[in-house]
Amino acid sequence: MKILGLDPGTVATGFGIVVFEQGRLTLECCGVWRPPAKLPLAAKLEFLSAAAFALMGEMAPAAVSVETVFAAKNIASALKLAHARGALLAAAARADLPVFEYEPRLVKKAIVGYGQAEKEQVRAMVLSLLARQRSRIPLDAADALAVAICHLHAPRTPGIHGTG
Amino acid sequence: MKILGLDPGTVATGFGIVVFEQGRLTLECCGVWRPPAKLPLAAKLEFLSAAAFALMGEMAPAAVSVETVFAAKNIASALKLAHARGALLAAAARADLPVFEYEPRLVKKAIVGYGQAEKEQVRAMVLSLLARQRSRIPLDAADALAVAICHLHAPRTPGIHGTG
Repeated sequence: MKILGLDPGTVATGFGIVVFEQGRLTLECCGVWRPPAKLPLAAKLEFLSAAAFALMGEMAPAAVSVETVFAAKNIASALKLAHARGALLAAAARADLPVFEYEPRLVKKAIVGYGQAEKEQVRAMVLSLLARQRSRIPLDAADALAVAICHLHAPRTPGIHGTG
Repeated sequence: MKILGLDPGTVATGFGIVVFEQGRLTLECCGVWRPPAKLPLAAKLEFLSAAAFALMGEMAPAAVSVETVFAAKNIASALKLAHARGALLAAAARADLPVFEYEPRLVKKAIVGYGQAEKEQVRAMVLSLLARQRSRIPLDAADALAVAICHLHAPRTPGIHGTG
């Protein structure tokens, strides 16, 4: 099963595709999309949407996995993130791919085994799980790979998982 | 000048196109897009994105006008709204249209002359401004028409207007 994980943001959106076959997890590709900083918001969102749609067509993942958004810390940041998510989720639906959303604590639990884990622990574990290709993983893509791996641990029906 | 106003929402997105020519304001079309409630979020966003992209291609407005989002009241609602905005703004950029964003108080000021006006006052004034076609304006489209008319009052460079 091939899963695309996304870590949305208007400044940088991380992406990573992992494949789980015959009990083995491998990294297919990963990277970061960075819209030119001078673009207006709408053009940045379309930049991300077009990049994601092209990748989905090229790599044909079975599903898209993404973290839910919440506004616990910084509302302005959460609103920007939600714009990026909106453009990316629409692109996934346009590519006819099911979208699975996981709460951050579920992603942490799936990767580190502990829902309150630090961001650094999650990243270190992702690099460890995909050790052979470690040098090819930009830090910004590690979070996208984490949510992709999370989906492999807990495949369910499309929608939001972990609420309530 | 033909302007498309959008009032984004995942449950209902209002749209309205007005034309200002030779000192006269006319209503070109307006309505509401309602994604089927049973669809997952990504599919709702793509529903809105596709509808907006098709309308932009068909009606060829010169620009898209939309209210800025802020999280003053309900953060969960603001996040949903931001998702819809993200999908719609990306569609506008894909259609190669400039996007102008106006703070709610600027829209109120442009329509009613008073930045603290009530929602009902804005709607009543929009219906009055477009009186001849009043019967064709759904309430949900009135806010979209308001932000379109606001742009006619204050055309500027694409981006966010009214901050600071």
